[in-house]
Amino acid sequence: MAREKEILEKVRARLDDLTKPKDSLGYLEKIIERYASITEKTEFKLPLKKIISVFCGDHGIAEEGVSAYPQEVTKQMVYNFVRGGAAINVIGKYIGADVFVVDVGVNGDIEKKGDGMWEFFISHKVNHGTKNFLKEPAMTPDEAKKSIEVGYKMSEIAQKYDIAVPGDMGIANTTPASAIVSFITEQPPEKVVGRGTGIDDQKLKKKIQVVREAIEKWRPKNGMEALEKFGGFEIGAIAGFILGCAEKKIPVVVDGIISLAGFCVAYSLDRSIPEKVFFGHKTYEPGGAVISEFFGQRPIVDLEMRLGEGTGGAIATTIIEIALSLYMNMATFSSAGVSRKID
Amino acid sequence: MAREKEILEKVRARLDDLTKPKDSLGYLEKIIERYASITEKTEFKLPLKKIISVFCGDHGIAEEGVSAYPQEVTKQMVYNFVRGGAAINVIGKYIGADVFVVDVGVNGDIEKKGDGMWEFFISHKVNHGTKNFLKEPAMTPDEAKKSIEVGYKMSEIAQKYDIAVPGDMGIANTTPASAIVSFITEQPPEKVVGRGTGIDDQKLKKKIQVVREAIEKWRPKNGMEALEKFGGFEIGAIAGFILGCAEKKIPVVVDGIISLAGFCVAYSLDRSIPEKVFFGHKTYEPGGAVISEFFGQRPIVDLEMRLGEGTGGAIATTIIEIALSLYMNMATFSSAGVSRKID
Repeated sequence: MAREKEILEKVRARLDDLTKPKDSLGYLEKIIERYASITEKTEFKLPLKKIISVFCGDHGIAEEGVSAYPQEVTKQMVYNFVRGGAAINVIGKYIGADVFVVDVGVNGDIEKKGDGMWEFFISHKVNHGTKNFLKEPAMTPDEAKKSIEVGYKMSEIAQKYDIAVPGDMGIANTTPASAIVSFITEQPPEKVVGRGTGIDDQKLKKKIQVVREAIEKWRPKNGMEALEKFGGFEIGAIAGFILGCAEKKIPVVVDGIISLAGFCVAYSLDRSIPEKVFFGHKTYEPGGAVISEFFGQRPIVDLEMRLGEGTGGAIATTIIEIALSLYMNMATFSSAGVSRKID
Repeated sequence: MAREKEILEKVRARLDDLTKPKDSLGYLEKIIERYASITEKTEFKLPLKKIISVFCGDHGIAEEGVSAYPQEVTKQMVYNFVRGGAAINVIGKYIGADVFVVDVGVNGDIEKKGDGMWEFFISHKVNHGTKNFLKEPAMTPDEAKKSIEVGYKMSEIAQKYDIAVPGDMGIANTTPASAIVSFITEQPPEKVVGRGTGIDDQKLKKKIQVVREAIEKWRPKNGMEALEKFGGFEIGAIAGFILGCAEKKIPVVVDGIISLAGFCVAYSLDRSIPEKVFFGHKTYEPGGAVISEFFGQRPIVDLEMRLGEGTGGAIATTIIEIALSLYMNMATFSSAGVSRKID
C-alpha cells in the first residue's frame, strides 16, 4: 500500500507538470493512474505489446433455442479467427496485437487444416461443449477447475505483453453469462438478460425464463459453483486469465457480458480483482450496466457494439495507449516555458 | 440524393454480409455510413491520411478575468505546438497525423526561431487578438470574414488528406464560444457557460454575467454577426475550415466547445453542415450537451477531456479508422463458410 501511494504520488506530480490545464486530460488521467498502480511502474515503454486471447466454447443450453445462431457457428468462427477474417482479427491487426485463439470447449474437433495463423491456435479442450444446465450442471467441478486453469496458463503467455484482452466465442454464451452475473450481483434475470446476437421478443422471454429457472434449480453457493452449474468453458478460462494476469501485474481490459461473467467469477475468488482491470467497452446487454454500477466502474468507450470476441476491450487499448503516450511524451511547464495558472 | 441512397445501400449490403451478428458493430456501422455518405465512396484506402489544424488566436475579453491562465499562454503554446510538446502533438504522432499550427490572431509576433516543425506553422494573422466584446465588437465585419477565409484556405491543404480535425488555442476562448453557442441554440448562458480550463465559482459567475451582458448588448442577427461581435479569429477559422472541408467532401471531426462554436457559425451559413461532420468527443463544457441535443448528434468518445487543441477529435479518428478497417477487411459469410442467423 505504501508502494502504491508512492507510485500514485509520482504519477500525479508528473501529470500536474505537463503543459495542460490541471486535470484536463479527464478520464485519461484516471487510466494512467490505474495502469501505473496495476503495473507498479511510473514509466512505460510504448507502444504497448498487446495480447488478445479469444477463448472458445460451446453450450448445451443452446438446444433450448436461446440464440439467434446455430451452434455450428462457434466452430466455423474458430476457423474464421485463424484465417484472420473476424472483427477481432481486424481490430487486433489495427492495434498491433497478437490474437490467440484457444479452444477450451468447442463442440467438435478443430482440424488444423488449410491456410491460417495456426501458430496462434491453442487447443486446451476441456470437453465438447457444456451440458444443458436446465437438465444437469453445465460442467463437473473438475471441468470448472480445468477451464480456469486454461486461462491461467494463457496468462503465462501474456507475461511477454504489456496489456491483455480476453475475448470469447460461444453460441448461446450470453445465457450462462447472464445467469452468473445475475447470481453475483443479486439482480433478477429480467434486469440482466438481453438479446445477445439479436433474438426476438419471444426468445428473450424464453431466455429470461431459462436463467430464472436455472438459478432457482441450482442455487449456487459462490461464484465457482455458479461457473460449474451454468458454464461455460470459455467463461471459466476468462476468469483464470484475469486472475493470472492480475497476479502477474498485467493490466487486463475486460470486454462485454461474457468477459464480465468471467470477471465476476474471478472476483468471487479474489476480491481485489476490480482494481486490477479496466472496463473497456460499455456492454450492450443490460447486465453490463448492472455490473458497472455494482463495481462502480466506468467503461472507457461506448460504441454500442455487441459481438464479443474481445472487440470492445481491444478498441479500448488504443485509448489506454494514447493516455500513456501523453503521460510519457508531453512537455512540462518548466521545459516548455509555459506560464502556470493564475492564483 | 439518389447517389447517396445508392451509396448507403451498397454499404449496408456489405455490412450485413460481414461475419458478425447483424448490426452488432453498433455505432461503428453508423460511422461507416456517415463516412461513406460524406465522401461519396464505398471503398476506403487505409490508413486514413489525417490532418489536424490548430487555429490560434487571442481574446480581448481575457482582460475581464474570465480565464484561469494569463493571455501570454496562447503564444507560449504556439511554440510548444511547433516543438511538439503539447497534447495534440503527442496524439497527432500516435494517430499518424500532420499537425498544422495556424496563427490567425495571436497577440504578439511569433518569431520563427529555435528548433521546431516550422514547416507546419502557418501565419495567417488577421489581427493581434480580438477586442474586449463587453466594450466594443470583438472583430470588424472584415476581420470576421478574413478569419473564415483562413480556415477555408486550410481546407485546401486538407484536400490531400482523408479526414480533418480542427483544433484551437486561445486563452479565454470558451467565453466567446459560449456566447456563440448560447446565441445559436437560444439557450441561456447559465446552461452553456462552463469552467473552461478550470476557473472557480466566482469567476464562473462573472463569466456567465459577461456572456449574458454581451448577448443583450450586441443582439446579433445571425451566426456571422455573432462571430463578429464575440470573436474570435480561431473560431472563425474553424468555421471556414469546416465549410471548406464539407464542400470538398473531406470528413471533419469536431472537437470541444471551441470547435462547436465554429461549427455553429458554419451551420448558420450552410444548414447541411451537421450531416457532414462527426462529433468526436463529448464536450465537458455544459454547452457541449446543449449542442449535441440541439443537433441530435452523438459524440464518438467521452473521455472527460477539456483541453481543446483538437485532442478529443483526434482521438476519435482512431475509432473512425477502426470502423472503416472492419468494413474493408472482415470476411464475409459466404467467403468464410459461416452459417447465418436462424429464421
